[in-house]
Amino acid sequence: MSEPSRDARGVNLDPWLSHYADRASGLSASEVRALFAVASRPEVVSLAGGMPYVSALPRELVTGALDRVMRDQGPTALQYGSGQGVPALREQILGIMALEGISGSVDDIVVTTGSQQALDLVTKLFIDPGDVILAEAPSYVGAIGVFRSYQASVVHITMDEFGLVPEALEAAITSCHASGKRIKFLYTIPNFHNPGGVTLSADRRPLILEICRRHNVLVLEDNPYGLLSFDEPVPPALRALDDEGVIYLGSFSKTFAPGFRVGWVLAPHAIREKLVLAAEAAILCPSAFSQLAIHEYLNEADWMGQIASFRDVYRERRDTMIRALEDHLPELTWNVPNGGFYVWAGLPPGLDSKAMLPRAVTELVAYTPGTAFFADGTGQSNMRLSFCYPTPENIQLGIRRLATVIHGERDLLDTFAGTGPLQASPSSPNVTAPPPDLN
Amino acid sequence: MSEPSRDARGVNLDPWLSHYADRASGLSASEVRALFAVASRPEVVSLAGGMPYVSALPRELVTGALDRVMRDQGPTALQYGSGQGVPALREQILGIMALEGISGSVDDIVVTTGSQQALDLVTKLFIDPGDVILAEAPSYVGAIGVFRSYQASVVHITMDEFGLVPEALEAAITSCHASGKRIKFLYTIPNFHNPGGVTLSADRRPLILEICRRHNVLVLEDNPYGLLSFDEPVPPALRALDDEGVIYLGSFSKTFAPGFRVGWVLAPHAIREKLVLAAEAAILCPSAFSQLAIHEYLNEADWMGQIASFRDVYRERRDTMIRALEDHLPELTWNVPNGGFYVWAGLPPGLDSKAMLPRAVTELVAYTPGTAFFADGTGQSNMRLSFCYPTPENIQLGIRRLATVIHGERDLLDTFAGTGPLQASPSSPNVTAPPPDLN
Repeated sequence: MSEPSRDARGVNLDPWLSHYADRASGLSASEVRALFAVASRPEVVSLAGGMPYVSALPRELVTGALDRVMRDQGPTALQYGSGQGVPALREQILGIMALEGISGSVDDIVVTTGSQQALDLVTKLFIDPGDVILAEAPSYVGAIGVFRSYQASVVHITMDEFGLVPEALEAAITSCHASGKRIKFLYTIPNFHNPGGVTLSADRRPLILEICRRHNVLVLEDNPYGLLSFDEPVPPALRALDDEGVIYLGSFSKTFAPGFRVGWVLAPHAIREKLVLAAEAAILCPSAFSQLAIHEYLNEADWMGQIASFRDVYRERRDTMIRALEDHLPELTWNVPNGGFYVWAGLPPGLDSKAMLPRAVTELVAYTPGTAFFADGTGQSNMRLSFCYPTPENIQLGIRRLATVIHGERDLLDTFAGTGPLQASPSSPNVTAPPPDLN
Repeated sequence: MSEPSRDARGVNLDPWLSHYADRASGLSASEVRALFAVASRPEVVSLAGGMPYVSALPRELVTGALDRVMRDQGPTALQYGSGQGVPALREQILGIMALEGISGSVDDIVVTTGSQQALDLVTKLFIDPGDVILAEAPSYVGAIGVFRSYQASVVHITMDEFGLVPEALEAAITSCHASGKRIKFLYTIPNFHNPGGVTLSADRRPLILEICRRHNVLVLEDNPYGLLSFDEPVPPALRALDDEGVIYLGSFSKTFAPGFRVGWVLAPHAIREKLVLAAEAAILCPSAFSQLAIHEYLNEADWMGQIASFRDVYRERRDTMIRALEDHLPELTWNVPNGGFYVWAGLPPGLDSKAMLPRAVTELVAYTPGTAFFADGTGQSNMRLSFCYPTPENIQLGIRRLATVIHGERDLLDTFAGTGPLQASPSSPNVTAPPPDLN
């Protein structure tokens, strides 16, 4: 009964174009999204995604948990549950957060569909169009996506090897206030930053909190990687130092498995009440089955021992990646992360990570261009290299392939030396800001 | 380091009160939410919730599916997946929708965290503050909640025993347009309506679509109960009659189990593309584990036979409830639903379902007051009685208890006859609109 809506070239027209909300203009495909498709081709070594190495998780530990859920709590696991989440799991989450110095109440925890949903709910709760969110430069691509989807204005703050720079934070706040902008919160990943790889130093943590408190800026602390330290444990969480001014996000995706989509938020009580209502509007309740599966896993398995195994796996891969960079790409800059999943690399002058990506894929290696991590589209001089998923052998192979690509680009650049700067491809804007110094 | 924010009476103050977005004012606790807590007390017979009777699902069918997932696809099930959902499951969803006459493409399906998330994403995509959503009177409480959370203005359209009244729809559209309001979509539950219990007749379906097409109003068709018919199958879905003007929502929550939180949306292609981006911003991807569990269940189990069993369970409960109403509460009005979970009952004049609820809970029976299903807070003369979860014996017991409550209220009303209308409790506004005629 309906009319097909295609024009003469077979292109789909959208008859509902005039119906979308204003915020729909903020929905755009990220680089990471396109790369998920690329990374799934088996011949490509992907240094792009942030997928944990779930094969390191003994299958019998998971199967045992699933069997116990169905045996002991089948009807509860298959049913709707509380919008706030299973109380017994929230008790266990309190214990996990205590490892980073956090004390709180089970009543102030909301279980979410991955910590991405917690990001979405917090943003929905606080952001009117045009409101400012402060975030590190660079910042997590998925956070930038959700901030954009609620029409937030993201203001990036400089990071160095000790994390977010307090003076830069203070200056940004002052500047925003001077121009009449409303700042709603600071979004920060203090530990093993994604994509920056750095950890906020212990002595900066109270400084950051003091600045935010003084300027009435809420802090949104995102900590998916904190337990994945390679050397010494991370400093106490920001939330451990301030329980009224910090919303804390945690996740089982990196310490257990992302396939169950279970994360959580710990928030000051009045905020927590609103987050539960927002969560119920969004999904009614998180999966009871997923929550009980993780509850059983935490109950019976040596999950701390398993995290220690994950640390060993990722430490070896980090070491492999750093050695390969030293061997094959000494002209790049990079940091050496003490935990987490990522190395943030800087390219030699004149190279553009976004423009170079198609050539890299042709050479069967993928990475995430730095542009994915800036709300303003800058970051062309950087790339994120993930060591979490590929084997050490594939990390070496991937870095060798990347060296081939970069050396080829450099040769091209040298060939045209003296004839002006190398033009980026038409689809890629030129570099408009210097990359943050993270090496 | 933080200051406790409690006033002299120990009440929590919210230091972040000035920080919330405008839309936060639309977040309020629904009656259903409070009732979930009540319904969980074992001594209360709850006719309130919409929980399917998952105990009717043979446990070995589920356990078998879970075992096969871990044995054959463990690392995929535990990992991040596509934001749009597992392709093999989307293929199966196409087959399920074909049962109601729908043909479409797997590429136009997005798997969501329950169909509630699909409601959330569609509303986020289309609604600017003040935009109008048309919906039946009454309408699904969870839809009203999500519409309110995006500051939509809900305009209710009269239903009768054949479903949404086309003339009322046309009149409402004309009236909205005359007053300059922007209508974004019609939200409708054509089959075994929640809470109304009625099904949109076959001859009205093309009329509704024609009116919407003529006025450029998108249709959002929500169909969680369509396969749970007690007598004859439902008429073809609205989406079966119009593939460019209808967004269709489906769910495994009622035909399999809600604990996995898996639903879906089938949308015109350009809308589908935006929905995937919105879904990725909200949760990155739906649970791979949940999707593969359902995929395995559909693959190996006799799921059509299982749905037939569910139909038998619910048909018996519907019959039990109707007989109990005839025996104990003939002064009420009600419809006899031909499928689904709900009876919509009308109270005798002078009674208020919301004000009466605390007394009902004292008598150990719970229901959902009609006010939950109207965006304007009317509906006090009605209640939703769910027959899906309690056993037939408990349905009889619950209706007997409800009769005690209602007869007590009538006696009170008679005692005060001639002294003016019975006052509703202070927390309950007076009835301001007549209930829809659904008996």
